[in-house]
Amino acid sequence: MTDNPAALIVLAAGQGSRMQSDLPKVLHRLAAVPLVGHALAVGRALEPAQIVVVAGHGADQVRKAVAKLEPDAQIALQEEQLGTGHAVLQAMPLLQDFQGRVIVLYGDTPFIGEDTLLALASHPADVVVLGFEAADPGRYGRLVTGPEGLERIVEFKDADAATRAIRLVNSGVMAADADLLRDILPRLGNQNASGEYYLTDVVALARAQGRRVEVVTCDEEETLGINTRAELAEAEAAFQARARARALEDGVTLSDPATVWFALDTCIGRDAIIGQNVVFGPGVTVESGAEILPFCHLEGCHVSAGATVGPFARLRPGAELGGDVHVGNFVEIKNSVLAEGVKVGHLTYLGDAQIGERTNIGAGTVTCNYDGVSKHRTQIGADAFIGSDTMLVAPVRVGARAMTGSGSVITEDVPDEALALGRAKQVTKPGLATRLMQALRQKKGN
Amino acid sequence: MTDNPAALIVLAAGQGSRMQSDLPKVLHRLAAVPLVGHALAVGRALEPAQIVVVAGHGADQVRKAVAKLEPDAQIALQEEQLGTGHAVLQAMPLLQDFQGRVIVLYGDTPFIGEDTLLALASHPADVVVLGFEAADPGRYGRLVTGPEGLERIVEFKDADAATRAIRLVNSGVMAADADLLRDILPRLGNQNASGEYYLTDVVALARAQGRRVEVVTCDEEETLGINTRAELAEAEAAFQARARARALEDGVTLSDPATVWFALDTCIGRDAIIGQNVVFGPGVTVESGAEILPFCHLEGCHVSAGATVGPFARLRPGAELGGDVHVGNFVEIKNSVLAEGVKVGHLTYLGDAQIGERTNIGAGTVTCNYDGVSKHRTQIGADAFIGSDTMLVAPVRVGARAMTGSGSVITEDVPDEALALGRAKQVTKPGLATRLMQALRQKKGN
Amino acid sequence: MTDNPAALIVLAAGQGSRMQSDLPKVLHRLAAVPLVGHALAVGRALEPAQIVVVAGHGADQVRKAVAKLEPDAQIALQEEQLGTGHAVLQAMPLLQDFQGRVIVLYGDTPFIGEDTLLALASHPADVVVLGFEAADPGRYGRLVTGPEGLERIVEFKDADAATRAIRLVNSGVMAADADLLRDILPRLGNQNASGEYYLTDVVALARAQGRRVEVVTCDEEETLGINTRAELAEAEAAFQARARARALEDGVTLSDPATVWFALDTCIGRDAIIGQNVVFGPGVTVESGAEILPFCHLEGCHVSAGATVGPFARLRPGAELGGDVHVGNFVEIKNSVLAEGVKVGHLTYLGDAQIGERTNIGAGTVTCNYDGVSKHRTQIGADAFIGSDTMLVAPVRVGARAMTGSGSVITEDVPDEALALGRAKQVTKPGLATRLMQALRQKKGN
Repeated sequence: MTDNPAALIVLAAGQGSRMQSDLPKVLHRLAAVPLVGHALAVGRALEPAQIVVVAGHGADQVRKAVAKLEPDAQIALQEEQLGTGHAVLQAMPLLQDFQGRVIVLYGDTPFIGEDTLLALASHPADVVVLGFEAADPGRYGRLVTGPEGLERIVEFKDADAATRAIRLVNSGVMAADADLLRDILPRLGNQNASGEYYLTDVVALARAQGRRVEVVTCDEEETLGINTRAELAEAEAAFQARARARALEDGVTLSDPATVWFALDTCIGRDAIIGQNVVFGPGVTVESGAEILPFCHLEGCHVSAGATVGPFARLRPGAELGGDVHVGNFVEIKNSVLAEGVKVGHLTYLGDAQIGERTNIGAGTVTCNYDGVSKHRTQIGADAFIGSDTMLVAPVRVGARAMTGSGSVITEDVPDEALALGRAKQVTKPGLATRLMQALRQKKGN
Repeated sequence: MTDNPAALIVLAAGQGSRMQSDLPKVLHRLAAVPLVGHALAVGRALEPAQIVVVAGHGADQVRKAVAKLEPDAQIALQEEQLGTGHAVLQAMPLLQDFQGRVIVLYGDTPFIGEDTLLALASHPADVVVLGFEAADPGRYGRLVTGPEGLERIVEFKDADAATRAIRLVNSGVMAADADLLRDILPRLGNQNASGEYYLTDVVALARAQGRRVEVVTCDEEETLGINTRAELAEAEAAFQARARARALEDGVTLSDPATVWFALDTCIGRDAIIGQNVVFGPGVTVESGAEILPFCHLEGCHVSAGATVGPFARLRPGAELGGDVHVGNFVEIKNSVLAEGVKVGHLTYLGDAQIGERTNIGAGTVTCNYDGVSKHRTQIGADAFIGSDTMLVAPVRVGARAMTGSGSVITEDVPDEALALGRAKQVTKPGLATRLMQALRQKKGN
Repeated sequence: MTDNPAALIVLAAGQGSRMQSDLPKVLHRLAAVPLVGHALAVGRALEPAQIVVVAGHGADQVRKAVAKLEPDAQIALQEEQLGTGHAVLQAMPLLQDFQGRVIVLYGDTPFIGEDTLLALASHPADVVVLGFEAADPGRYGRLVTGPEGLERIVEFKDADAATRAIRLVNSGVMAADADLLRDILPRLGNQNASGEYYLTDVVALARAQGRRVEVVTCDEEETLGINTRAELAEAEAAFQARARARALEDGVTLSDPATVWFALDTCIGRDAIIGQNVVFGPGVTVESGAEILPFCHLEGCHVSAGATVGPFARLRPGAELGGDVHVGNFVEIKNSVLAEGVKVGHLTYLGDAQIGERTNIGAGTVTCNYDGVSKHRTQIGADAFIGSDTMLVAPVRVGARAMTGSGSVITEDVPDEALALGRAKQVTKPGLATRLMQALRQKKGN
């Protein structure tokens, strides 16, 4: 956070036609989060007084996604896409009472760093442009600087050879005083080849007023923008490479880093072990010393120290695994709390359940949590033993130290220490298997 | 297709000893299809009048595989492998009544493109050799061209420095007039270091007759041949890289392109989402907007728009998923039609089944389709509710809006709107769990 | 093995603080085996008379791990880490009666090859230093050689320009006569910047005694040491790349080599097929012609010729699959022997079981091998048919050609050819499903 109050504007109105998609570009996912969520997430570092997302194409979808990502954000509608300056202008009515620094980010530019953002927010100049030293400046606008800061931005096509030789270029990201924007934005023109209102032109108008305009720089990789699915795949690869390197530095064991996929907010403790082929969706915390075996899919869950998960396990939102819990293969856990020491070894679905300490859940157990209309909860006490293939027809409670016989359908509560059975007695018919098989073979032969 | 009738000969007789395999080389799979299937697949662009595959090593296996891949293809047997010219000669008796253009492809050269094939087929010359500009011409035969087309092919070892400098080289693929081949092939000699009859020598003999011989060129990557498993792995990587890039261009979302494996005929719609680690076997279509979550294995199936599959799902041949169907984790579907809106969330096997619209299949459900001798079908109507752990002992029908209790074994048909139960009533014995556990612990202690 | 008796010392006392881990560095896994296990495994080529592991940080954990990896190894404790010379000195009391060649390896240097080790062991010189030609000699100690062998080792910081130009550098690995070490090690000094006793200094002292000191060389990649998790990940990648290339050369089909992970001792036969995303833990043998489909996890198991496994299968230690066995999706096998031709197609857990030839195990079958206190065995004869969702409550036997009805809980032995059923008869209640659903909806509405 900075001393000066900050407001964030995120431009998210573009169609992204090169994505070949009906989904608005900013809703395509990177690190398991919509692109626009990256700008919103980094923006939190500013503790902004207001956040405005400018939506246009697919505005309803963008509105819904933003509401989930950042409930405090407001939406400004840009009906026609008439340029970045026009987009920011649409946001200003929502900021009419705001005094301080406005920072303009892009919904399709996910990698701007916190430090960069804080530098933009806290810089004393009236307008601050985010620039970077481009490895290949190509067709970027050149930033011409002098003793008084940023003198002008020259578009590539207007640049002479000397200007083209400048490698400091414009990222498009800008910070400016709110009053200045209120003054200048309405006066932007669109007398250019595209007929658009460019945010960039704020610089010249501010300079003409004698305002102070400066450049803050960042690494080129922070400015990566997404225009095609191939670029999105590259950005994903870049994100994952950094996240994997960071995890290794933090003391996480990754059996094969290239096959672990992190979400933006994945949090893994030191000496946790992550096997090959683990996918983290949003909202996962894995504590120190937990082990995730290969082929696991985790989302919205918490795995405590000493727990082991997988291989072939799926933890869905609301799965809370206590210390030393074991979740084995072909097991799905959803919206369930497993207390310390619970074992769920094989072929099980636990949904909407609460399981007490050290309870053992047999293979093939299912919490029948849905009756066709509503979902219901299953509660099991500590030190219980749920036999294999137990159907727990919720709502139902099984007491502490209770036991269910394998193959039982449990429809009524089981008191502490009781044994519940719901199965037919075995009947064995000598010789009948052979006779049945002969009959089946004969029938088939006919 | 071209105006001139075309016949295709695919040479597939070699042993491929460098593959270190008992399997004939052309039957090793690339993009989930035997190598020879790639030549046959591209050959369809010609709408050939006849297709002849020349088999030798492992001819019976090759015959069977070809019968599946291309039922119209005929097999010519090359008992001894005496060279490419000899191989083509073995195919000619099957083409004795054919008039037109014969194109010779190789079963171990999977990447020749359709455009290249059509160019070979439609070229007016009597003989057309497929050449390419080699990045490193190495030991390839050089194509010496002049005003009258292809003058001669010079083997590397016979080439002087000037000829070696030529980068246009011979791919081995050739197209020629059928009558010309009938005339020239029997006259090929084997007076060379290998003692083999070379198809290449057709060029010199045709030129000597004053026939027109020309070169058609293709990209070097089309001519990639497979001789070792490492080369096969590289070819697979090349195929997958192109297929992934094409999918991205077509508007498919691939969460990590490097972990999606396409088959030769995989067809994915725009805005479909394919998660990490998805393997497509042959014969898969995924419609626009469907989502395949991570860790899925699909083969011979159809996934309609709005459906979601996985994670950890397997769709086997004959799985037909209607719109908005949901197939969840640890679910296998085989030879079954799931109508619109069916939900199969967890731990289920559906084989040889037909499921009506909006029906919900509980966790742990199994279609018991095999009685030890034959397979039988299960039919379930619309809006039914199959309780968890229902065993559907086929042949069996469950009506529309019917329900089965969880843990039931259904052996008889269930009428529409009926509830079927097949389970014992729960019996609860107070304190027995604790006494049982004490007894077990005591027994173990002794 | 060599004529001269050999003893192996493995230095494994370091903390590895750059690993950011509470686990001793040498216990971090590479190729599914603790790092120290690699030195121990290659050491077997020497058939050493004694093996001493010098432990320090986490000595108890190292002791336990070594006991599993190499029961014959002894542990010497290095309480304080005062340098490599000091470490070797701690091992010498355990070797007090040993005459012959002592070879010193490092627990964090996993790639020294057998041939290198044998060359060190069999070399006639009194002291042999393992050197290598470094692509970038950097700060390694330079090996200055002359007509009489290794003249001296010059540390980088003490080297003049000419010496720095030497590319032959010291790996740290050394072999020496046991008597010589007993004589020289106690006389090493620690008058250097680190205040440590360096094993390297043995060279100068031996030369001063007129002993013969020589260099044996190896490839630089053999000398790769592990100091960080990133280096461990790189070493893993290097190991896997070599193992994959070797498998391809040996005639194994790898659908995508980059997604198959081998353990140090994985053994795969020619013409076996390994699909995408297969993880091998320690102790796996897959015979010629077996097929492992994608998404499998194997550990401590044997897969015979003609067997097919997966996709989505897990074989745990003690799984023995006979010829032509089929293990399908979402199946877990642990400590169980499946005789020739057994089929286990779907959603099954077999633990502590023995299954006879050609027996078919239905979907959803579970061996209930744990009663809350002990594990018990299940035995099934040949040609049996286990119906879907059969619970086999161990200890239990099912005879040859016997059958169990689907949904049965089998608690008593089933004789040969008998049919065992344990399920309630189906009861069908017309119209009740619809009435139930209406009631549930009404209740929810209220």
